[in-house]
Amino acid sequence: MTEVVTYRPGPEELSYTFGGRDPVRRVRPGTVVELYTEDCFGGRVRGVDDLPSRVCEFPFLNPVTGPIHVEGAEPGDTLAVHVVAIEPARDWAVSSTFPHFGALTGTHATATLHPPLDELVWLYEVDRAAGTVTYRARRGDFTVALPLDPMHGTMGVAPAAFESRMTIVPDAHGGNMDSPELRAGVTAYFGVNVPGALFAVGDGHCRQGHGEVCGTGVEAAMNTTVILDLIKGAPTPWPRLETDDVLLSTGSARPLEDAYRISQHDLVTWVAALAGLDLLDAYQLVSQAGTAPVGNVCDPNYTMLAGIPKRYLGRTSAYEGVHARLRAIAGEYLAHR
Amino acid sequence: MTEVVTYRPGPEELSYTFGGRDPVRRVRPGTVVELYTEDCFGGRVRGVDDLPSRVCEFPFLNPVTGPIHVEGAEPGDTLAVHVVAIEPARDWAVSSTFPHFGALTGTHATATLHPPLDELVWLYEVDRAAGTVTYRARRGDFTVALPLDPMHGTMGVAPAAFESRMTIVPDAHGGNMDSPELRAGVTAYFGVNVPGALFAVGDGHCRQGHGEVCGTGVEAAMNTTVILDLIKGAPTPWPRLETDDVLLSTGSARPLEDAYRISQHDLVTWVAALAGLDLLDAYQLVSQAGTAPVGNVCDPNYTMLAGIPKRYLGRTSAYEGVHARLRAIAGEYLAHR
Amino acid sequence: MTEVVTYRPGPEELSYTFGGRDPVRRVRPGTVVELYTEDCFGGRVRGVDDLPSRVCEFPFLNPVTGPIHVEGAEPGDTLAVHVVAIEPARDWAVSSTFPHFGALTGTHATATLHPPLDELVWLYEVDRAAGTVTYRARRGDFTVALPLDPMHGTMGVAPAAFESRMTIVPDAHGGNMDSPELRAGVTAYFGVNVPGALFAVGDGHCRQGHGEVCGTGVEAAMNTTVILDLIKGAPTPWPRLETDDVLLSTGSARPLEDAYRISQHDLVTWVAALAGLDLLDAYQLVSQAGTAPVGNVCDPNYTMLAGIPKRYLGRTSAYEGVHARLRAIAGEYLAHR
Amino acid sequence: MTEVVTYRPGPEELSYTFGGRDPVRRVRPGTVVELYTEDCFGGRVRGVDDLPSRVCEFPFLNPVTGPIHVEGAEPGDTLAVHVVAIEPARDWAVSSTFPHFGALTGTHATATLHPPLDELVWLYEVDRAAGTVTYRARRGDFTVALPLDPMHGTMGVAPAAFESRMTIVPDAHGGNMDSPELRAGVTAYFGVNVPGALFAVGDGHCRQGHGEVCGTGVEAAMNTTVILDLIKGAPTPWPRLETDDVLLSTGSARPLEDAYRISQHDLVTWVAALAGLDLLDAYQLVSQAGTAPVGNVCDPNYTMLAGIPKRYLGRTSAYEGVHARLRAIAGEYLAHR
Repeated sequence: MTEVVTYRPGPEELSYTFGGRDPVRRVRPGTVVELYTEDCFGGRVRGVDDLPSRVCEFPFLNPVTGPIHVEGAEPGDTLAVHVVAIEPARDWAVSSTFPHFGALTGTHATATLHPPLDELVWLYEVDRAAGTVTYRARRGDFTVALPLDPMHGTMGVAPAAFESRMTIVPDAHGGNMDSPELRAGVTAYFGVNVPGALFAVGDGHCRQGHGEVCGTGVEAAMNTTVILDLIKGAPTPWPRLETDDVLLSTGSARPLEDAYRISQHDLVTWVAALAGLDLLDAYQLVSQAGTAPVGNVCDPNYTMLAGIPKRYLGRTSAYEGVHARLRAIAGEYLAHR
Repeated sequence: MTEVVTYRPGPEELSYTFGGRDPVRRVRPGTVVELYTEDCFGGRVRGVDDLPSRVCEFPFLNPVTGPIHVEGAEPGDTLAVHVVAIEPARDWAVSSTFPHFGALTGTHATATLHPPLDELVWLYEVDRAAGTVTYRARRGDFTVALPLDPMHGTMGVAPAAFESRMTIVPDAHGGNMDSPELRAGVTAYFGVNVPGALFAVGDGHCRQGHGEVCGTGVEAAMNTTVILDLIKGAPTPWPRLETDDVLLSTGSARPLEDAYRISQHDLVTWVAALAGLDLLDAYQLVSQAGTAPVGNVCDPNYTMLAGIPKRYLGRTSAYEGVHARLRAIAGEYLAHR
Repeated sequence: MTEVVTYRPGPEELSYTFGGRDPVRRVRPGTVVELYTEDCFGGRVRGVDDLPSRVCEFPFLNPVTGPIHVEGAEPGDTLAVHVVAIEPARDWAVSSTFPHFGALTGTHATATLHPPLDELVWLYEVDRAAGTVTYRARRGDFTVALPLDPMHGTMGVAPAAFESRMTIVPDAHGGNMDSPELRAGVTAYFGVNVPGALFAVGDGHCRQGHGEVCGTGVEAAMNTTVILDLIKGAPTPWPRLETDDVLLSTGSARPLEDAYRISQHDLVTWVAALAGLDLLDAYQLVSQAGTAPVGNVCDPNYTMLAGIPKRYLGRTSAYEGVHARLRAIAGEYLAHR
Repeated sequence: MTEVVTYRPGPEELSYTFGGRDPVRRVRPGTVVELYTEDCFGGRVRGVDDLPSRVCEFPFLNPVTGPIHVEGAEPGDTLAVHVVAIEPARDWAVSSTFPHFGALTGTHATATLHPPLDELVWLYEVDRAAGTVTYRARRGDFTVALPLDPMHGTMGVAPAAFESRMTIVPDAHGGNMDSPELRAGVTAYFGVNVPGALFAVGDGHCRQGHGEVCGTGVEAAMNTTVILDLIKGAPTPWPRLETDDVLLSTGSARPLEDAYRISQHDLVTWVAALAGLDLLDAYQLVSQAGTAPVGNVCDPNYTMLAGIPKRYLGRTSAYEGVHARLRAIAGEYLAHR
């Protein structure tokens, strides 16, 4: 039988780094884990007058739930995280500009002499039944319902090399990739860097545009269920995603072309290995059949993905078919909860 | 009645710049123009032994057909180019690596001390009836049919400021954007910089992955039909695209985040104007509802697009509804040819 | 005897591109050319109330004097430009911020939603006898004399591939490199792309900080004397400089690390050729002995230089010793004028 | 009397992160600290056959000596580190290429499909009496003596936000800035992020070119003496340097223009505060009088500095004159040791 573990952290249990922290739970590979994740503002922005720069305090931003120790995970293994469900925990969500953060503003790195753009909060209604989030203009009466498409901006494991990184940073350990591709139905793969892997997740978005151009998505607390599993002896250099139809590699770096290069390079080598192709043959196939979804263009590293439909790769299976196996377990779990 | 002009250039009539050249034809706004475009290798790469660096000669690369003078076009106007049809002219197409060109290699700008990657040519079969192009590995027997999805890598007008630019460069005048979004059914908008606009097009691809990671798509000569129309007194800062469902802005620059910034910035200001939104309200809406398709990550400037579904913008119409009007004319033309 | 040609263009003779324009003079190799160059504002900014965005009109910015046809120059040759003298033509000079231009502001490429920084003009007193330019704060009474160190921001030849480029752009043909290293006593080398080379020069600065961070130097009209000479059959991939003590390569690109890479790569290969070193041995030597002066970090391409003291290279001589030869001619010319 | 503390770590005491580690010593502000630092290879590369990728093991690279807890240091204070002496501990030093590391090679971030460049080691003779290090070509008999100019590539404090960073990374906490400006006679300022500041230092270079283009300097173990002092209540956003003549700000980021922007932005605001200038007046002054020395263009973040001669700022003094005070103490110490 599948084991189910439930964990709902109190505010004081939230984590603000990947790495450098003791696990909050220990689970066996194959465990279904039901989690609550707080929104990126720690739930403190509840209306348009709650300006993030006033109600939040650095570095207590973008909390994650975890870390969870997966028994038997060792450096050189891969942690498989199947996302069973991501469900908004409230009937509202928020987004905002934030001083010197976002893609169309001077920032601390792209330092300019401009004063910050206005800090504004947008409050969204979340209608789970209708499957929508409703945008309302702050300075006018324009309103529009957008499709609900829940995802996690932040997911990953403890980094290598004794590092501890702020949760706002995406890198080879995962972290704040802010990709809309990280939704229910996906299996995410992370290379394990420390014993137990130390998985954590947070920063749910009801939806998000590509690049998260203003710096935030439609931020929401989530009730999220994942299955944590282990592939022994299989290294994963950068986080990867698998859906029923597509394989995706990620890359997180600056400038943005390096995020593109990392993700495409990882996909080319992965495709070469899976389909038994010469490296340049794989380069050519990805060049014509590949996609390049943008994750974030606002965080300390930018994130891009490189994808290819599985049907173009012939009879092949990534990570010993773990995605199909976890998908089946997830189906059974969802049918019985 | 709609006027139809046909132009099939001889090899010596091909152009290698935007700007700096006399028009090959003059047409009235609203004219349907049937064109032949040569592939990016000038048709010289016809088999796997025709290495581009041997059979092609700099700067005679990436030829375009044109320029075409559109009567009445003046700086400050917008040229609307509705793409009626893009049809591969041969039953084969080619792709290749090219020394120090592409995203996963040292280049002349990202200068390294590495010798170039192997120069290889891939020959594709084009099956218009089946709607496929067939990839064959060069070093193995792997083969796969990919969907035919014809597009033009290069389209634009003469640049501003007395400039003349190689056709391989994308910039504010259009040029080598290499975006798969530039397919039949789309209306492209270009700001006019010189009298007559001086439209040109080339670099057809049977299909292309996002970013054109190896530096070339599935390169093919095309029989292409466009309608050239004019919107007087409407400036367009960067090329834009409109489909039946989506509005898209483009940006071409390095690093890649600046291409992202330009395109998202243009879309935010365009959405603000169309939907009557405050700038920050438009920023927020695009942040949650926007897309960011990648054009090229290999050319002298990289290209990204920023898109938004038209249904999110309420009752609004871009450029006085010219897309719908040209779409109707295109339908009639296609029904009668 | 050395031939001396004098050319002082009228306002209507100024040029705004490299390429795409007929020569204003033809000279034989070895000719001393005495020129007048207007400042980057075309001389229209003469006081703190002359805001550049009001008194100047795009694209009539950054005028250059020329082009000058050098007889016998053919593609594959190198034009040697020895800078004999750069002398401020007036007793004042100006600098300014300019809307959305500079390194610490959002720009058209690094597009943000910020309104532009204040546009301000600073008027400098030029004291040739004392060798100073005097800065005065606009909003306070702070004043300081800085050393006069005249240079040209813009110098180059017609580009390759039928291109014509705005004078504000630096690239492989030279152009707006904005490097303080381009002062009197230097020999600059440019690869010839078109018959006659088509040399032009402008954008004099009384001095400039590294990177030209606000977007302008201490802008001044100049009386400038150069000797134009030719090295037949010697290609030069990117502009290079030679002083009595140092060899320098340039690179102009975005992002800035690519300007660094181009310039260092060119220096490594140049040093390998001059000193008879293996490529990796030259890489190592430049790594420990090289300099990397910054040109501009504000123009359409950024510019960096890579330098090495000649004394570290043993008994070797660049371009057949042309620098020493022209230096001697310059000395004689200066002694007799 | 000045207190003097001596600390020579054993191999097992070396540290590989900033942050995340207990202090090895505690000192009072004003203490003179005599340290031994190992080279970046941990002393394992001792000849041309000791290839770093074979004799070193990730992540045990670039060890630092420390951290040292400075009593009374609290977040919001500034740690002043006056560099009294940096003396090579051996009569040899090494440099090398390293697979996929350096500026003129594909790297893990600028991912390409090229195999790595050859891994080569260069052994330098260090002659302290003559003040030289001698380069010898590996593939030829070229040799040249270069001036000895000892510096530390890596110096800093524990980062903010509970982070722990590999010593190879430069960021706001300092770290692997690899700037030749960090030599004896300089006072370095670091913002304190955690109680005790937790100062550490390593990665001595006998000299280094600008940008460290091949990825390593002339690497050497050092006997280094610093004075650690404290400026209470004075925050420092990015590391700064002060010499007798110059003030310098640093910035570490990618792309390189962001390192430039950060450093110039910090210098502009610092100059405005010191000289009582309006922000745009300071921008203008730095634009004409500023320098931009390059640190590294090879590490996970690139580093640039922004400098201005103190004589241009009038009668002003940074950090309450601590540099002059520590300089005097250093003089006395050196006179008596």
